[in-house]
Amino acid sequence: MAAKRGYFITFEGAEGSGKSTQVKLLCEYLAKKKIDYEVSREPGGTDIGEQIREILLNPKNSKMCAVTELLLYSASRSQHIYERIKPAIESGKIFISDRFSFATLAYQGYGRKIDLELIKKITDIAVQGIEPDLIFLLDIDPLVGVNKAKIKSQAIYATENGDRLENESIEFHNDVRNGYLELACQNHNVKVIEYAPIEIVHQQIIKTLEQKFGI
Amino acid sequence: MAAKRGYFITFEGAEGSGKSTQVKLLCEYLAKKKIDYEVSREPGGTDIGEQIREILLNPKNSKMCAVTELLLYSASRSQHIYERIKPAIESGKIFISDRFSFATLAYQGYGRKIDLELIKKITDIAVQGIEPDLIFLLDIDPLVGVNKAKIKSQAIYATENGDRLENESIEFHNDVRNGYLELACQNHNVKVIEYAPIEIVHQQIIKTLEQKFGI
Repeated sequence: MAAKRGYFITFEGAEGSGKSTQVKLLCEYLAKKKIDYEVSREPGGTDIGEQIREILLNPKNSKMCAVTELLLYSASRSQHIYERIKPAIESGKIFISDRFSFATLAYQGYGRKIDLELIKKITDIAVQGIEPDLIFLLDIDPLVGVNKAKIKSQAIYATENGDRLENESIEFHNDVRNGYLELACQNHNVKVIEYAPIEIVHQQIIKTLEQKFGI
Repeated sequence: MAAKRGYFITFEGAEGSGKSTQVKLLCEYLAKKKIDYEVSREPGGTDIGEQIREILLNPKNSKMCAVTELLLYSASRSQHIYERIKPAIESGKIFISDRFSFATLAYQGYGRKIDLELIKKITDIAVQGIEPDLIFLLDIDPLVGVNKAKIKSQAIYATENGDRLENESIEFHNDVRNGYLELACQNHNVKVIEYAPIEIVHQQIIKTLEQKFGI
């Protein structure tokens, strides 16, 4: 008998919105409940995707044009779908991804002003028919979020600068945030969670999962 | 006054067809005639493109799915266009590329059987309106070409295997070759040159350039 199909859950949100922390807490919660899950991130999530992520986030690659960036995010995504997401949910697991296609629409579309229809076309090709069952959008004021993220990545790159995305203007990050919120309005499977103390956000996430999937 | 627009010339052909050698000879010819040119290759041609090339050709990345491969070639191409090809031909130079969009159609479309219309859509996005003025297609029997290429790349990777592309079956390479020849029939700006001694091929290339562009 084929396994019951699992659920594909993604976390979206601007720099410093606390996605990674919430993903970690959710994994601990699922592990405690002995629910089979896999966790990953975009760009990345596979060996090949991590190599692509390296190119995307390296501050030395500042000459990258918007179309190249879009194609690289999509390349990482298609490999992620093919190698991990599709097999996991087909075998009945919960698959959690830190960022997915909303991020491309928000950053490349609303942020860098690449034609949204164009992004949707390429994204459709990359996702090969797989869509999240639930999207958590962690909303945060960019003035707060970007500074938090910069402090974190200064440690990683050991320079005074953040990565390529964090070094964008505050207007860019405002456009991204507003894009995310617009996408949430247009899609039925999005749960927007406002910035709040970690434990409160975590509880909202658990409650949503219980209501939606009974887990 | 704006500079007269230059010409964009690409070399296409299967593994071991002698593209790189012919590109080198053409460059020497142009240098002797004091004609301003730039030369490059795909995937690659820019810092970012070379990083993408590394991912594409590394034999360790054998799990790469066809859509990822297509998106990575296209990402390298869009950066190439943006950073080098467009500025060069707009400033009146001749730009020579070892491989371009025909390679994607031949390898991913005819070789890996990805939908040709899909490839054309993504390629259209990547090339941003720039098309070659002249395409040299160096035709070679795959049985001859692939062996030549393998011997060359064994030295580079220091293993007994070739790169990811060279390790494909002979049927794959036959499909690629037939795809190239079909593309040549469908496009008016292609000059097909049959495998022959290096100097004879070079002379055919020079003659074509004289007839077409008066150089």
